[in-house]
Amino acid sequence: MRAYNFSAGPAILPEEVLKQAQAELLDYQGTGMSIMEMSHRGKDYSAVHQETKDNIAKLLNLPDNYSVLFMTGGASTQFSLIPMNLLGEGQTADYITSGAWSSKAIKTAKSIGNVNEVANTAKEIPTCMPTNESLQFTEGAAYVHICSNETIAGTQVKEFPKTDAPLIADMSSDIFSRPLDVSQFGMIYAGAQKNLGPAGVTLVIIRNDLAEKSPESLPELFQYKHFMENDSLSNTAPTFPIYLLCLVTRWLLAQGGLEGIQKKNDEKAAKLYDAIDSSDFYKGTAKKEWRSPMNVTFRLPSEELEAKFVAEASKKGMTSLKGHRSVGGIRASIYNAFPAEGVDALISFMKEFEAANS
Amino acid sequence: MRAYNFSAGPAILPEEVLKQAQAELLDYQGTGMSIMEMSHRGKDYSAVHQETKDNIAKLLNLPDNYSVLFMTGGASTQFSLIPMNLLGEGQTADYITSGAWSSKAIKTAKSIGNVNEVANTAKEIPTCMPTNESLQFTEGAAYVHICSNETIAGTQVKEFPKTDAPLIADMSSDIFSRPLDVSQFGMIYAGAQKNLGPAGVTLVIIRNDLAEKSPESLPELFQYKHFMENDSLSNTAPTFPIYLLCLVTRWLLAQGGLEGIQKKNDEKAAKLYDAIDSSDFYKGTAKKEWRSPMNVTFRLPSEELEAKFVAEASKKGMTSLKGHRSVGGIRASIYNAFPAEGVDALISFMKEFEAANS
Repeated sequence: MRAYNFSAGPAILPEEVLKQAQAELLDYQGTGMSIMEMSHRGKDYSAVHQETKDNIAKLLNLPDNYSVLFMTGGASTQFSLIPMNLLGEGQTADYITSGAWSSKAIKTAKSIGNVNEVANTAKEIPTCMPTNESLQFTEGAAYVHICSNETIAGTQVKEFPKTDAPLIADMSSDIFSRPLDVSQFGMIYAGAQKNLGPAGVTLVIIRNDLAEKSPESLPELFQYKHFMENDSLSNTAPTFPIYLLCLVTRWLLAQGGLEGIQKKNDEKAAKLYDAIDSSDFYKGTAKKEWRSPMNVTFRLPSEELEAKFVAEASKKGMTSLKGHRSVGGIRASIYNAFPAEGVDALISFMKEFEAANS
Repeated sequence: MRAYNFSAGPAILPEEVLKQAQAELLDYQGTGMSIMEMSHRGKDYSAVHQETKDNIAKLLNLPDNYSVLFMTGGASTQFSLIPMNLLGEGQTADYITSGAWSSKAIKTAKSIGNVNEVANTAKEIPTCMPTNESLQFTEGAAYVHICSNETIAGTQVKEFPKTDAPLIADMSSDIFSRPLDVSQFGMIYAGAQKNLGPAGVTLVIIRNDLAEKSPESLPELFQYKHFMENDSLSNTAPTFPIYLLCLVTRWLLAQGGLEGIQKKNDEKAAKLYDAIDSSDFYKGTAKKEWRSPMNVTFRLPSEELEAKFVAEASKKGMTSLKGHRSVGGIRASIYNAFPAEGVDALISFMKEFEAANS
């Protein structure tokens, strides 16, 4: 019996994906070995590597002048690699701070180069994103950094700002959850463990002319350029995490691509936010216009009731509903792979719990 | 039907390990979710993380003043991180070059700091390691770097040199294949995909006082110190690769630890080298005193016969016997997890092939 797993990350994966990985774990397509036991340069893994890039290109209608890279170290390592690769001597990078993750990104960048914080809504309650009108960018900035979805705050950028400098977005918690015009961006990146696959691979999609900017003085394995030129295979890639990412992208195409998955995501989120709004017992923590369809954050009348809510839900197979330790409250992460029935189950439980405790 | 998989890496894993991972892939110990779908801070994954460290400490009789770190980016990323962390301004690091991997290590280090190559046997045929007597170390060197087993050359260090400076060893291709006195080393490290698990996690075992040397100016996720202080959990660890590493260490303990596995490795290697030596048709490529029990490299009378050998073996379920593209020939990688019956099967085939083709 599978749990309704509301974990914020590492997070739930599509059951079909896990079943396929399970079925072929000891014998990948008649080869007599697991995909994780094969050379990263052999024909079987090469086909997986290529298909993953092709599926991603299909999902995003990716323009020809972008490259798909598979890196490691999570989004947090990108917080360093971005300024190391793209913030030249004497240049300034603009950072938009909207919560815990973008705060970490700017803190790391500041230790590496010149940074201008163009907005900061990280401490506002209810949680929110800065409005595009409030953003004053630096003329000639090397790039503008933004986080598309703040996992802890439960907020999401609805319309990306227009920028002259290349826009770089950390999309770890909402990548592939909605259609995206990649040409608006210089680079997007995401740790896999929320919406893409297991922890252990970081997806980077970068415009080729930006990747070309990697300084030669950087060690090769820290250079976007080196990953681009070597198809992310200069050294052994994390082949099993990439294989799971391949299966997830295949699953996404079968869901009707990003339009199809967005429809499902919006339906799940709308139901859950409706349940919150139609009650005086539950209170959403994000401003309505910035609410994330991925991470639904809310409070109960007291911390005691929140602890009781989490414990009782867990007994009913609804797990990991506790909010992040830095903010408390409840967080229901309902990524692409989270089933609609799990949202229905949570809503039923919320009603029962309210009736019994208000 | 499982293949006899002689891949040099990613390489064969113990069948028991894969079977357990398969059995619990959708439901880890009754939790209703995969281990890869869980928070890296939750109690189930935390137990795996801790057990992996404990098992490694048990296998190595690890002294208290060493830390076990789980990093990413493979051994090749360590080629940069080692000098970035441990080679101070004005210091020199000694490097021993003995083949393709140590050549890459020194090349990367040279782009970062002051390096002295104390020996170079990378181009010698038959392949070999430098003798300890030939090594003239730099006084006051920051560290001495060595590769314990050259995967491509098929050579292995039999006795590690005594050094005043901390000895740092790349053990990617023979870690946990034989007992080890860790107190001889300042640091040992290994990409997982040969003897430890799948690609995606890098094992680093470092003496705490060395880890303390990480400069504050380095981004945190490049600092050994930061990994040590945060138990490799400052950001999301590659949880599924570490879980497989956990199962492999458990399997190793059940094999009688490093003494037990060494006995099996030596038996497998002795049989295969005997088969080579008792024939004029096959010719080993490494000097006898440096022969690796992990990667057995040999030649046939012609490249045409080598290609035919690889193709016919593959049809019989003995795969990935082709030598590295840079050197040609045959390479049978028989890591810890490679079964003795596979070695017997290869030897039988070698006899048949010789009879039919000589």
